[in-house]
Amino acid sequence: MKLYYAPGACSLGIHVLLEETGKPYELSLVDTKNGGQFSPEYVAVNPKSKVPALDLGDEGPVLTEWTAIASYLAAANPEAGLAPKDPLGMARAVEAVDYITGTVHPHAFTRQFRPHMFSGREEDHPKAVETARANAAKYFDLLEKNWRGDTWVLPAGFSIADAALFFVEYWHVKRVGQSLPPKLDAHFKAMLERPAVKRALEQEGLAA
Amino acid sequence: MKLYYAPGACSLGIHVLLEETGKPYELSLVDTKNGGQFSPEYVAVNPKSKVPALDLGDEGPVLTEWTAIASYLAAANPEAGLAPKDPLGMARAVEAVDYITGTVHPHAFTRQFRPHMFSGREEDHPKAVETARANAAKYFDLLEKNWRGDTWVLPAGFSIADAALFFVEYWHVKRVGQSLPPKLDAHFKAMLERPAVKRALEQEGLAA
Repeated sequence: MKLYYAPGACSLGIHVLLEETGKPYELSLVDTKNGGQFSPEYVAVNPKSKVPALDLGDEGPVLTEWTAIASYLAAANPEAGLAPKDPLGMARAVEAVDYITGTVHPHAFTRQFRPHMFSGREEDHPKAVETARANAAKYFDLLEKNWRGDTWVLPAGFSIADAALFFVEYWHVKRVGQSLPPKLDAHFKAMLERPAVKRALEQEGLAA
Repeated sequence: MKLYYAPGACSLGIHVLLEETGKPYELSLVDTKNGGQFSPEYVAVNPKSKVPALDLGDEGPVLTEWTAIASYLAAANPEAGLAPKDPLGMARAVEAVDYITGTVHPHAFTRQFRPHMFSGREEDHPKAVETARANAAKYFDLLEKNWRGDTWVLPAGFSIADAALFFVEYWHVKRVGQSLPPKLDAHFKAMLERPAVKRALEQEGLAA
Protein backbone atom coordinates (compact mmCIF):
# COMPACT_ATOMS: atom_id res chain seq x y z
CA MET A 1 0.00 0.00 0.00
CA LYS A 2 1.09 3.55 -0.67
CA LEU A 3 -0.24 6.68 1.04
CA TYR A 4 -0.25 9.91 -0.96
CA TYR A 5 0.12 12.69 1.60
CA ALA A 6 1.21 16.28 2.15
CA PRO A 7 3.12 17.05 5.39
CA GLY A 8 0.72 18.22 8.08
CA ALA A 9 -2.38 17.96 5.86
CA CYS A 10 -5.41 15.91 6.94
CA SER A 11 -3.56 12.92 5.47
CA LEU A 12 -1.61 13.01 8.78
CA GLY A 13 -4.56 11.25 10.42
CA ILE A 14 -4.46 8.41 7.88
CA HIS A 15 -0.68 8.24 8.29
CA VAL A 16 -1.23 7.71 12.03
CA LEU A 17 -3.75 4.93 11.33
CA LEU A 18 -1.32 3.18 8.95
CA GLU A 19 1.32 3.31 11.70
CA GLU A 20 -1.25 1.90 14.15
CA THR A 21 -1.85 -1.12 11.90
CA GLY A 22 1.83 -2.09 12.06
CA LYS A 23 1.65 -3.26 8.44
CA PRO A 24 4.22 -2.19 5.84
CA TYR A 25 3.33 0.71 3.53
CA GLU A 26 5.07 3.38 1.47
CA LEU A 27 4.69 7.15 1.56
CA SER A 28 4.46 9.35 -1.52
CA LEU A 29 4.69 13.09 -0.97
CA VAL A 30 2.33 15.31 -2.97
CA ASP A 31 3.74 18.85 -3.17
CA THR A 32 0.45 20.66 -2.53
CA LYS A 33 2.30 23.92 -1.75
CA ASN A 34 3.32 24.09 -5.40
CA GLY A 35 0.16 22.65 -6.96
CA GLY A 36 1.47 19.06 -7.13
CA GLN A 37 -2.07 17.79 -6.62
CA PHE A 38 -2.97 19.20 -10.07
CA SER A 39 -0.06 17.52 -11.92
CA PRO A 40 -1.09 15.00 -14.61
CA GLU A 41 0.68 12.27 -12.60
CA TYR A 42 -1.39 12.95 -9.49
CA VAL A 43 -4.66 13.55 -11.35
CA ALA A 44 -4.20 10.03 -12.75
CA VAL A 45 -3.98 8.80 -9.12
CA ASN A 46 -6.84 10.93 -7.77
CA PRO A 47 -8.85 13.01 -10.27
CA LYS A 48 -10.23 14.98 -7.30
CA SER A 49 -6.72 16.43 -6.68
CA LYS A 50 -6.88 15.86 -2.94
CA VAL A 51 -4.85 14.06 -0.31
CA PRO A 52 -5.07 11.56 1.29
CA ALA A 53 -5.30 8.83 -1.34
CA LEU A 54 -4.37 5.24 -0.63
CA ASP A 55 -3.03 2.99 -3.37
CA LEU A 56 -4.17 -0.47 -2.31
CA GLY A 57 -1.75 -2.26 -4.62
CA ASP A 58 -2.93 -5.82 -5.22
CA GLU A 59 -6.11 -5.18 -3.24
CA GLY A 60 -7.57 -2.79 -5.81
CA PRO A 61 -7.44 0.69 -7.33
CA VAL A 62 -6.70 3.86 -5.36
CA LEU A 63 -9.09 4.64 -2.50
CA THR A 64 -9.93 8.29 -1.71
CA GLU A 65 -11.87 10.27 0.95
CA TRP A 66 -10.73 10.33 4.59
CA THR A 67 -13.74 8.47 6.03
CA ALA A 68 -13.58 5.75 3.38
CA ILE A 69 -9.84 5.15 3.83
CA ALA A 70 -10.10 5.14 7.63
CA SER A 71 -13.12 2.79 7.64
CA TYR A 72 -11.32 0.49 5.23
CA LEU A 73 -8.16 0.36 7.37
CA ALA A 74 -10.30 -0.43 10.41
CA ALA A 75 -12.27 -3.18 8.63
CA ALA A 76 -9.23 -4.70 6.88
CA ASN A 77 -7.11 -4.76 10.07
CA PRO A 78 -9.52 -6.01 12.76
CA GLU A 79 -6.59 -7.00 15.02
CA ALA A 80 -5.44 -3.36 15.17
CA GLY A 81 -8.63 -2.33 17.00
CA LEU A 82 -9.19 0.86 15.01
CA ALA A 83 -12.99 0.88 15.37
CA PRO A 84 -15.78 -0.84 17.30
CA LYS A 85 -17.01 -3.96 15.53
CA ASP A 86 -20.76 -3.62 16.20
CA PRO A 87 -22.85 -1.56 13.72
CA LEU A 88 -23.78 1.16 16.22
CA GLY A 89 -20.26 1.48 17.62
CA MET A 90 -18.88 1.78 14.10
CA ALA A 91 -21.59 4.35 13.28
CA ARG A 92 -20.49 6.44 16.29
CA ALA A 93 -16.91 6.36 14.98
CA VAL A 94 -18.04 7.42 11.50
CA GLU A 95 -20.30 10.12 13.03
CA ALA A 96 -17.31 11.70 14.81
CA VAL A 97 -15.04 11.35 11.78
CA ASP A 98 -17.63 12.90 9.50
CA TYR A 99 -18.19 15.90 11.76
CA ILE A 100 -14.45 16.57 11.78
CA THR A 101 -13.76 15.98 8.09
CA GLY A 102 -17.01 17.49 6.80
CA THR A 103 -17.57 20.43 9.15
CA VAL A 104 -14.56 21.22 11.35
CA HIS A 105 -11.92 20.80 8.64
CA PRO A 106 -13.58 22.94 5.92
CA HIS A 107 -15.34 25.61 7.99
CA ALA A 108 -12.80 26.15 10.76
CA PHE A 109 -9.53 25.42 8.94
CA THR A 110 -9.82 25.49 5.14
CA ARG A 111 -11.64 28.82 5.54
CA GLN A 112 -8.85 30.01 7.84
CA PHE A 113 -5.85 28.76 5.86
CA ARG A 114 -7.23 29.32 2.35
CA PRO A 115 -9.78 32.16 2.62
CA HIS A 116 -9.67 32.74 -1.17
CA MET A 117 -11.70 29.52 -1.51
CA PHE A 118 -14.52 31.28 0.36
CA SER A 119 -14.18 34.87 -0.83
CA GLY A 120 -12.75 36.17 -4.10
CA ARG A 121 -11.94 39.60 -2.62
CA GLU A 122 -8.61 39.91 -0.85
CA GLU A 123 -9.91 42.65 1.46
CA ASP A 124 -12.51 40.18 2.76
CA HIS A 125 -9.94 37.55 3.75
CA PRO A 126 -9.40 38.84 7.31
CA LYS A 127 -13.16 38.54 7.84
CA ALA A 128 -13.11 34.95 6.51
CA VAL A 129 -10.24 34.12 8.90
CA GLU A 130 -12.18 35.68 11.78
CA THR A 131 -15.31 33.65 10.93
CA ALA A 132 -13.21 30.48 10.69
CA ARG A 133 -11.62 31.08 14.10
CA ALA A 134 -15.04 31.69 15.64
CA ASN A 135 -16.19 28.43 14.02
CA ALA A 136 -13.18 26.57 15.45
CA ALA A 137 -14.03 27.81 18.96
CA LYS A 138 -17.70 26.83 18.48
CA TYR A 139 -16.95 23.36 17.09
CA PHE A 140 -14.35 22.50 19.74
CA ASP A 141 -16.75 23.71 22.42
CA LEU A 142 -19.49 21.45 21.01
CA LEU A 143 -17.09 18.49 21.01
CA GLU A 144 -16.04 19.26 24.58
CA LYS A 145 -19.63 19.55 25.84
CA ASN A 146 -20.74 16.35 24.10
CA TRP A 147 -17.66 14.31 24.98
CA ARG A 148 -18.78 10.73 25.63
CA GLY A 149 -15.43 8.96 25.99
CA ASP A 150 -12.75 8.84 28.64
CA THR A 151 -9.28 9.48 27.16
CA TRP A 152 -10.47 8.70 23.63
CA VAL A 153 -13.45 10.01 21.67
CA LEU A 154 -15.51 6.83 21.98
CA PRO A 155 -16.21 5.15 25.33
CA ALA A 156 -15.19 1.87 23.63
CA GLY A 157 -11.59 3.08 23.28
CA PHE A 158 -9.15 4.32 20.64
CA SER A 159 -10.56 4.50 17.11
CA ILE A 160 -10.42 6.22 13.74
CA ALA A 161 -12.30 9.10 15.42
CA ASP A 162 -9.19 9.90 17.48
CA ALA A 163 -7.00 10.09 14.39
CA ALA A 164 -9.49 12.52 12.83
CA LEU A 165 -9.75 14.70 15.91
CA PHE A 166 -5.96 14.68 16.20
CA PHE A 167 -5.26 16.40 12.90
CA VAL A 168 -7.61 19.33 13.62
CA GLU A 169 -6.25 19.60 17.17
CA TYR A 170 -2.74 19.64 15.70
CA TRP A 171 -3.64 22.50 13.35
CA HIS A 172 -5.33 24.48 16.12
CA VAL A 173 -2.47 24.14 18.63
CA LYS A 174 0.68 23.85 16.52
CA ARG A 175 -0.22 25.81 13.42
CA VAL A 176 -2.54 28.52 14.76
CA GLY A 177 -1.13 28.62 18.30
CA GLN A 178 -4.51 28.41 20.04
CA SER A 179 -5.47 26.41 23.11
CA LEU A 180 -8.05 23.64 23.39
CA PRO A 181 -10.78 23.11 26.00
CA PRO A 182 -9.69 20.72 28.81
CA LYS A 183 -10.95 17.35 27.54
CA LEU A 184 -9.69 18.00 24.02
CA ASP A 185 -6.37 19.24 25.40
CA ALA A 186 -5.97 16.01 27.38
CA HIS A 187 -6.91 14.06 24.24
CA PHE A 188 -4.34 15.90 22.15
CA LYS A 189 -1.61 15.23 24.71
CA ALA A 190 -2.57 11.54 24.94
CA MET A 191 -2.38 11.30 21.14
CA LEU A 192 1.10 12.87 21.14
CA GLU A 193 2.22 10.07 23.48
CA ARG A 194 1.19 7.27 21.11
CA PRO A 195 4.20 5.71 19.36
CA ALA A 196 2.30 5.64 16.05
CA VAL A 197 1.68 9.39 16.29
CA LYS A 198 5.33 10.08 17.16
CA ARG A 199 6.49 8.08 14.14
CA ALA A 200 4.01 9.75 11.77
CA LEU A 201 5.01 13.26 12.91
CA GLU A 202 8.71 12.45 12.59
CA GLN A 203 8.27 10.96 9.13
CA GLU A 204 6.43 14.11 8.00
CA GLY A 205 9.07 16.40 9.54
CA LEU A 206 6.57 17.93 11.99
CA ALA A 207 7.06 19.18 15.55
CA ALA A 208 5.88 16.75 18.25
CA MET B 1 -36.79 4.97 14.90
CA LYS B 2 -37.58 8.53 13.97
CA LEU B 3 -36.03 10.54 11.14
CA TYR B 4 -35.69 14.28 11.61
CA TYR B 5 -35.86 15.75 8.10
CA ALA B 6 -36.65 18.84 6.06
CA PRO B 7 -38.55 18.34 2.78
CA GLY B 8 -36.11 18.07 -0.12
CA ALA B 9 -32.99 18.50 2.07
CA CYS B 10 -30.16 15.95 2.01
CA SER B 11 -32.24 14.01 4.55
CA LEU B 12 -34.25 12.87 1.49
CA GLY B 13 -31.47 10.34 0.80
CA ILE B 14 -31.79 8.86 4.30
CA HIS B 15 -35.57 8.85 3.93
CA VAL B 16 -35.14 6.76 0.76
CA LEU B 17 -32.87 4.32 2.62
CA LEU B 18 -35.39 3.95 5.45
CA GLU B 19 -38.06 3.14 2.86
CA GLU B 20 -35.67 0.62 1.28
CA THR B 21 -35.28 -1.23 4.60
CA GLY B 22 -39.04 -1.85 4.77
CA LYS B 23 -38.89 -1.41 8.56
CA PRO B 24 -41.31 0.88 10.43
CA TYR B 25 -40.13 4.39 11.32
CA GLU B 26 -41.59 7.81 12.04
CA LEU B 27 -40.89 11.15 10.37
CA SER B 28 -40.41 14.41 12.25
CA LEU B 29 -40.34 17.59 10.18
CA VAL B 30 -37.75 20.23 11.10
CA ASP B 31 -38.86 23.62 9.76
CA THR B 32 -35.43 24.72 8.48
CA LYS B 33 -37.00 27.50 6.37
CA ASN B 34 -37.94 29.27 9.59
CA GLY B 35 -34.90 28.34 11.67
CA GLY B 36 -36.50 25.31 13.31
CA GLN B 37 -33.09 23.65 13.45
CA PHE B 38 -32.02 26.28 16.01
CA SER B 39 -35.02 25.80 18.33
CA PRO B 40 -34.17 24.57 21.85
CA GLU B 41 -36.19 21.40 21.14
CA TYR B 42 -34.13 20.54 18.08
CA VAL B 43 -30.78 21.58 19.58
CA ALA B 44 -31.53 19.02 22.31
CA VAL B 45 -31.91 16.41 19.55
CA ASN B 46 -28.90 17.51 17.48
CA PRO B 47 -26.67 20.27 18.89
CA LYS B 48 -25.18 20.68 15.39
CA SER B 49 -28.57 22.03 14.18
CA LYS B 50 -28.52 19.92 11.01
CA VAL B 51 -30.75 17.37 9.36
CA PRO B 52 -30.77 14.41 8.95
CA ALA B 53 -30.73 13.04 12.50
CA LEU B 54 -31.99 9.58 13.34
CA ASP B 55 -33.47 8.81 16.74
CA LEU B 56 -32.64 5.13 17.25
CA GLY B 57 -35.18 4.71 20.06
CA ASP B 58 -34.29 1.65 22.12
CA GLU B 59 -31.09 1.12 20.12
CA GLY B 60 -29.39 4.24 21.48
CA PRO B 61 -29.19 8.03 21.39
CA VAL B 62 -29.68 10.12 18.25
CA LEU B 63 -27.30 9.42 15.39
CA THR B 64 -26.16 12.31 13.15
CA GLU B 65 -24.11 12.80 9.94
CA TRP B 66 -25.31 11.44 6.60
CA THR B 67 -22.50 8.89 6.13
CA ALA B 68 -22.85 7.57 9.68
CA ILE B 69 -26.63 7.16 9.45
CA ALA B 70 -26.45 5.52 6.00
CA SER B 71 -23.64 3.15 7.05
CA TYR B 72 -25.58 2.22 10.15
CA LEU B 73 -28.79 1.48 8.23
CA ALA B 74 -26.78 -0.69 5.82
CA ALA B 75 -25.03 -2.60 8.63
CA ALA B 76 -28.14 -2.96 10.81
CA ASN B 77 -30.32 -4.19 7.90
CA PRO B 78 -28.10 -6.66 6.01
CA GLU B 79 -31.13 -8.25 4.34
CA ALA B 80 -31.97 -4.92 2.64
CA GLY B 81 -28.73 -5.04 0.61
CA LEU B 82 -27.85 -1.36 1.08
CA ALA B 83 -24.08 -1.84 0.83
CA PRO B 84 -21.49 -4.44 -0.15
CA LYS B 85 -20.49 -6.64 2.78
CA ASP B 86 -16.73 -6.92 2.09
CA PRO B 87 -14.43 -4.20 3.52
CA LEU B 88 -13.32 -2.84 0.14
CA GLY B 89 -16.83 -2.86 -1.34
CA MET B 90 -18.11 -0.99 1.71
CA ALA B 91 -15.18 1.45 1.43
CA ARG B 92 -16.15 2.15 -2.20
CA ALA B 93 -19.69 2.94 -1.05
CA VAL B 94 -18.41 5.27 1.69
CA GLU B 95 -15.97 6.87 -0.78
CA ALA B 96 -18.83 7.79 -3.13
CA VAL B 97 -21.07 8.95 -0.26
CA ASP B 98 -18.31 11.10 1.19
CA TYR B 99 -17.53 12.80 -2.11
CA ILE B 100 -21.20 13.71 -2.49
CA THR B 101 -21.87 14.80 1.10
CA GLY B 102 -18.47 16.44 1.71
CA THR B 103 -17.70 18.06 -1.66
CA VAL B 104 -20.67 18.11 -4.06
CA HIS B 105 -23.29 19.09 -1.46
CA PRO B 106 -21.40 22.03 0.13
CA HIS B 107 -19.45 23.42 -2.83
CA ALA B 108 -22.00 22.96 -5.62
CA PHE B 109 -25.26 23.32 -3.73
CA THR B 110 -24.92 24.98 -0.30
CA ARG B 111 -22.81 27.66 -2.03
CA GLN B 112 -25.54 28.00 -4.67
CA PHE B 113 -28.61 27.97 -2.41
CA ARG B 114 -27.11 29.83 0.57
CA PRO B 115 -24.34 32.06 -0.83
CA HIS B 116 -24.32 34.18 2.35
CA MET B 117 -22.57 31.24 4.05
CA PHE B 118 -19.64 31.81 1.68
CA SER B 119 -19.63 35.60 1.25
CA GLY B 120 -20.92 38.26 3.62
CA ARG B 121 -21.44 40.80 0.81
CA GLU B 122 -24.77 40.62 -0.96
CA GLU B 123 -23.26 42.01 -4.19
CA ASP B 124 -20.91 39.00 -4.28
CA HIS B 125 -23.71 36.43 -4.12
CA PRO B 126 -24.23 36.14 -7.90
CA LYS B 127 -20.51 35.32 -8.20
CA ALA B 128 -20.85 32.65 -5.46
CA VAL B 129 -23.81 31.14 -7.33
CA GLU B 130 -21.82 31.17 -10.57
CA THR B 131 -18.85 29.42 -8.89
CA ALA B 132 -21.21 26.85 -7.37
CA ARG B 133 -22.81 26.10 -10.75
CA ALA B 134 -19.38 25.69 -12.35
CA ASN B 135 -18.49 23.33 -9.49
CA ALA B 136 -21.67 21.32 -10.06
CA ALA B 137 -20.79 20.87 -13.73
CA LYS B 138 -17.21 19.89 -12.82
CA TYR B 139 -18.22 17.40 -10.11
CA PHE B 140 -20.95 15.72 -12.20
CA ASP B 141 -18.49 15.49 -15.10
CA LEU B 142 -15.94 13.81 -12.81
CA LEU B 143 -18.58 11.34 -11.59
CA GLU B 144 -19.63 10.61 -15.19
CA LYS B 145 -16.06 10.03 -16.41
CA ASN B 146 -15.19 7.79 -13.45
CA TRP B 147 -18.45 5.84 -13.47
CA ARG B 148 -17.66 2.23 -12.52
CA GLY B 149 -21.14 0.78 -12.15
CA ASP B 150 -23.87 -0.23 -14.56
CA THR B 151 -27.25 1.26 -13.55
CA TRP B 152 -26.06 1.96 -9.99
CA VAL B 153 -22.95 3.74 -8.70
CA LEU B 154 -21.18 0.55 -7.63
CA PRO B 155 -20.69 -2.44 -9.94
CA ALA B 156 -21.97 -4.61 -7.05
CA GLY B 157 -25.45 -3.05 -7.30
CA PHE B 158 -27.73 -0.61 -5.47
CA SER B 159 -26.22 0.91 -2.31
CA ILE B 160 -26.15 3.90 0.02
CA ALA B 161 -24.06 5.63 -2.69
CA ASP B 162 -27.13 5.75 -4.96
CA ALA B 163 -29.24 7.41 -2.27
CA ALA B 164 -26.51 10.05 -1.82
CA LEU B 165 -26.13 10.70 -5.54
CA PHE B 166 -29.90 10.88 -5.86
CA PHE B 167 -30.39 13.90 -3.60
CA VAL B 168 -27.81 16.04 -5.45
CA GLU B 169 -29.21 14.90 -8.81
CA TYR B 170 -32.67 15.85 -7.56
CA TRP B 171 -31.49 19.34 -6.61
CA HIS B 172 -29.69 19.82 -9.94
CA VAL B 173 -32.61 18.70 -12.11
CA LYS B 174 -35.73 19.59 -10.14
CA ARG B 175 -34.61 22.61 -8.12
CA VAL B 176 -32.08 24.29 -10.46
CA GLY B 177 -33.55 23.00 -13.73
CA GLN B 178 -30.23 21.79 -15.15
CA SER B 179 -29.51 18.60 -17.08
CA LEU B 180 -27.19 15.75 -16.10
CA PRO B 181 -24.57 13.94 -18.18
CA PRO B 182 -25.92 10.70 -19.77
CA LYS B 183 -24.93 8.09 -17.16
CA LEU B 184 -26.07 10.26 -14.27
CA ASP B 185 -29.28 11.09 -16.11
CA ALA B 186 -30.00 7.37 -16.56
CA HIS B 187 -29.16 6.84 -12.87
CA PHE B 188 -31.54 9.61 -11.78
CA LYS B 189 -34.35 8.16 -13.90
CA ALA B 190 -33.72 4.65 -12.53
CA MET B 191 -33.87 6.06 -8.99
CA LEU B 192 -37.20 7.78 -9.71
CA GLU B 193 -38.61 4.36 -10.69
CA ARG B 194 -37.76 2.74 -7.34
CA PRO B 195 -40.87 2.32 -5.15
CA ALA B 196 -38.90 3.50 -2.08
CA VAL B 197 -37.98 6.73 -3.87
CA LYS B 198 -41.57 7.30 -5.02
CA ARG B 199 -42.84 6.86 -1.47
CA ALA B 200 -40.19 9.17 0.03
CA LEU B 201 -40.91 11.93 -2.50
CA GLU B 202 -44.65 11.64 -1.95
CA GLN B 203 -44.28 11.73 1.84
CA GLU B 204 -42.14 14.90 1.57
CA GLY B 205 -44.61 16.52 -0.86
CA LEU B 206 -42.03 16.66 -3.67
CA ALA B 207 -42.48 16.31 -7.43
CA ALA B 208 -41.53 12.89 -8.81
